Amino acid sequence: MRIDDLRTPAVLVEASLLDRNLRTMTAALPGPRLRPHVKAHKCTALARRQAALGHRGFTCATIREMEGMAAAGLGEDLLLANEVVDARRLGALDARVTVAVDSLETIEAAATGGVREVLIDVNVGLPRCGCRPEEAGRLAARARQRGLQVRGVMGYEGHVMAQTDADERARLTSESMEKLAAAHRDVGGEVVSAGGTLTFACNRLATEIQAGTYALMDSAFAGAGVPFRPAVSLLATVISVQSDHAVADCGLKALGMDHGNPSIEGARVWFCSDEHVTFAAERPLRVGARVRVLPAHLDPTLAYHEHIHVVEGDRVLEVWPVDLRGW
Amino acid sequence: MRIDDLRTPAVLVEASLLDRNLRTMTAALPGPRLRPHVKAHKCTALARRQAALGHRGFTCATIREMEGMAAAGLGEDLLLANEVVDARRLGALDARVTVAVDSLETIEAAATGGVREVLIDVNVGLPRCGCRPEEAGRLAARARQRGLQVRGVMGYEGHVMAQTDADERARLTSESMEKLAAAHRDVGGEVVSAGGTLTFACNRLATEIQAGTYALMDSAFAGAGVPFRPAVSLLATVISVQSDHAVADCGLKALGMDHGNPSIEGARVWFCSDEHVTFAAERPLRVGARVRVLPAHLDPTLAYHEHIHVVEGDRVLEVWPVDLRGW
Repeated sequence: MRIDDLRTPAVLVEASLLDRNLRTMTAALPGPRLRPHVKAHKCTALARRQAALGHRGFTCATIREMEGMAAAGLGEDLLLANEVVDARRLGALDARVTVAVDSLETIEAAATGGVREVLIDVNVGLPRCGCRPEEAGRLAARARQRGLQVRGVMGYEGHVMAQTDADERARLTSESMEKLAAAHRDVGGEVVSAGGTLTFACNRLATEIQAGTYALMDSAFAGAGVPFRPAVSLLATVISVQSDHAVADCGLKALGMDHGNPSIEGARVWFCSDEHVTFAAERPLRVGARVRVLPAHLDPTLAYHEHIHVVEGDRVLEVWPVDLRGW
Repeated sequence: MRIDDLRTPAVLVEASLLDRNLRTMTAALPGPRLRPHVKAHKCTALARRQAALGHRGFTCATIREMEGMAAAGLGEDLLLANEVVDARRLGALDARVTVAVDSLETIEAAATGGVREVLIDVNVGLPRCGCRPEEAGRLAARARQRGLQVRGVMGYEGHVMAQTDADERARLTSESMEKLAAAHRDVGGEVVSAGGTLTFACNRLATEIQAGTYALMDSAFAGAGVPFRPAVSLLATVISVQSDHAVADCGLKALGMDHGNPSIEGARVWFCSDEHVTFAAERPLRVGARVRVLPAHLDPTLAYHEHIHVVEGDRVLEVWPVDLRGW
């Protein structure tokens, strides 16, 4: 199949860039040093590539992602790096399942849901889930009391990711990891799970890094000094050309918009509607022309799409279902 | 089923509010005076309700919506109010199909794709699709030359919708409709299709109004002086409670974010992550509590979800697939 044959909007992934990103990360964090996060791509075919490079443990953000990974035979060591108050679907999986807990309630949910292993989730600076570091030991004791295996701790330094200066990011990461290390001393276990694409190199504490974005690489993080290149664009068709603007068929329902408007090379984007992007192009366009739209935020963009098209030049090499969507 | 039994995040629609919105609009614009737009809800079960109230013609924004409506037996008179450069999927439908055209290329696509009827799409002020009013007659002649039935004109005054003052909105709508009337004089045909939820009452020219938002009513438009009430909320589960904030499982991948953060009654929303909303609640919350999250923009929110749950009190009356998603 040729790219020209695709219906639009369509997610394109440059095969060579994806391959380069995957290999670069694997070289830096081989085997179990990396626990790829599937939330960025929600695609078991891509996860299978990561597994083939030696990463057999995966990180998930939703129960559906856990179920999909297990069903795809990628359940050797799945971590749900998120809290759930009903773990029965997890307990029913044919997979090794570990779930993050940060409260008595989530420990109870894991125990009664049939999950056997947990990580104590620690707040290391991002105001989201995670207990205070000084609570971690007490929660671990409670989890063990409830018959759960406590594998260690988890603490995502997500508040650091907005920092584009690499040195400052490293400093903030170290600060965060001091908190996690303190918690780890109280909790025990062999796992310290943390990190992401922007801190994979400067996080010295984590035994495993939960990076996901690196594979397809979000253009929002380009320029942050990491060796990964944006591999995704959306193919769109120009459906209308007027005197001062053109319109392509890629709108709000094909784009994560929390980081703002997408961009189009050689054009200035005016605004997006449900199914349209209106833009002014530097060069004249004809109706029917194809343009590449770069989403401002990749993860919520992919969650709108049914397929990823892996391309090389004008050829579509593979079509991968985005099969981990939903909840 | 009870609401408490639902997995979260889940889209809830209050049955009584939906019913009231539907009946209010039907009373104002009975039968063919309204051509409901399905893009807002993407749900054939909801469209069937609209059809049962006497609206047999529908408006769509994508080819997938047209296909889904035809497959659901709702294809008596489907308008694709959007331009396409490949109309073959439309020509293959077992339905009455009309498509918007605004260029020689889209006319050619309709003719060669097997579509038989078109509307000339006219730019009445929104910089998106639509020809200049003075071009409409020439395009209509060309369409007829190519064997197409020209049913009339279409012109969406979308730029008016941001105007919250009802009088000013009415004035701007009249201005826009003067342009459409001029085009209609040159084009002929019995159809003048225009309007939306915020201009349904003040658009005096259109023979049919393309409103869609009114059914579920976007909270973004509440307070704009129209007699419809927001009927949708997202049910979310509190998964973590910390000293100064709580976290629920409804994030960027469950919410259209182009209008900004969602709101939660009795709480201040801090930020959304992929699968989380972090917020400060006025009253203490426990882990496992359910909260209602109000999306800032409804249409791109629904496009993330597989189901709409129609509820009354704590009961789930019906579960409707959001079956018109994708392209």
